[in-house]
Amino acid sequence: MVEYIAFDADDTLWHHETQFSEAHAKFELLMQEYLTGSYDSQYLFDTEIRNLKHYGYGVKSFGLSMIETALELTDGRISPEHIRFLVNVTKEMLAAPVQVLPEVEAVLDELSGDYPLMVITKGDLLDQESKFVRSRLSEYFRCIEVVSEKDPFSYSRILRRHRIRPENFLMVGNSLRSDVVPVLEIGAQAVYIPRRQTWGREYVQMDEPRPRLYVELEHIGQLPEWLEARQLAA
Amino acid sequence: MVEYIAFDADDTLWHHETQFSEAHAKFELLMQEYLTGSYDSQYLFDTEIRNLKHYGYGVKSFGLSMIETALELTDGRISPEHIRFLVNVTKEMLAAPVQVLPEVEAVLDELSGDYPLMVITKGDLLDQESKFVRSRLSEYFRCIEVVSEKDPFSYSRILRRHRIRPENFLMVGNSLRSDVVPVLEIGAQAVYIPRRQTWGREYVQMDEPRPRLYVELEHIGQLPEWLEARQLAA
Repeated sequence: MVEYIAFDADDTLWHHETQFSEAHAKFELLMQEYLTGSYDSQYLFDTEIRNLKHYGYGVKSFGLSMIETALELTDGRISPEHIRFLVNVTKEMLAAPVQVLPEVEAVLDELSGDYPLMVITKGDLLDQESKFVRSRLSEYFRCIEVVSEKDPFSYSRILRRHRIRPENFLMVGNSLRSDVVPVLEIGAQAVYIPRRQTWGREYVQMDEPRPRLYVELEHIGQLPEWLEARQLAA
Repeated sequence: MVEYIAFDADDTLWHHETQFSEAHAKFELLMQEYLTGSYDSQYLFDTEIRNLKHYGYGVKSFGLSMIETALELTDGRISPEHIRFLVNVTKEMLAAPVQVLPEVEAVLDELSGDYPLMVITKGDLLDQESKFVRSRLSEYFRCIEVVSEKDPFSYSRILRRHRIRPENFLMVGNSLRSDVVPVLEIGAQAVYIPRRQTWGREYVQMDEPRPRLYVELEHIGQLPEWLEARQLAA
């Protein structure tokens, strides 16, 4: 039986990747002022991935990676004024309004009456907490847990801390890599609700066709009905 | 009675401010190449404070603030190569070895036999967790809690989560503002071990002379003895 439900935040509860896509687009426009050849967006992605071990996830990390990539791609010709533009893009991302995804609030309203809910998200601590408050969704949740990496270890630690048994825990999110695979690995359950835009880093290689241990829903609005059927069957 | 002890990390368990002082010194040297007048270190501090609400605490925030201050102070004349230098200073700070302060390990070794210990620190989630591991002190602690701000609310939340009553909780740290005042406000106890270098932001204005609700020790090595006397008296 599901007794405790946790939701991923970015691109599960609110828009996230759109903001990064927009920043990538601004970055591309800027680079085109400098480059003679065509701009390859892979450069910025590669810098982001390379810097993950230094910076971790989040907007500040992205900002520092934009600046680094700009310096590399322009061979140091980028103007200081344009560096300042990139700093400002970073700050605007941190202050941008949080756009809650469709049907999220209705689903949380319904489920929070029957289950304790929590948010488990990775990224910048202050940024995630601030978005949680700005989203106005915090009243539906018992707590928010911000982790530096969503792996089996971090999920286990959260469950232990809240005295939840894995078999009673359900994770809902848009990333197989972060919200589904590590959750299945500790013996808990997961609902996968893909978003059209998912960051390259979030894709997971499934080595072999494995039995569907998780359910995939098209839309968060389908969650309450699925859950009800699931509980009746249990 | 003290039943649970938490330690601040930066400048309580390991060197921290020295790293920022060194980065400030590098920044000053760089600025002197551009400035005709003298360099005023207050500029960088002011940018850091102004950006706290955007970026929060931590090394990445500091790096972005250095870049912003450099652009301002040089009126946009800073060379891209020097921006790259500032990015590298930031990365080096994140990867620098963690220097544990004198007597810390002996004290933790002694106390961890008698008390559950935890670390409560603010800053960058990944950076703090990484320093915790690199310090090789993690075996002495039950857990590390990274918070975005050390205020009464965040301390209360941690105590509730771990089912600790405030009167049984002792916080040890080098900052009156972060480790002492909010802890006293929730009815718990605090030991203040000042470091010579404390960031301007960490100073607290005490409005009126208040009775000493906390104890001040010169050195962490004095903690076990003080604690023993304290427990006998309780």
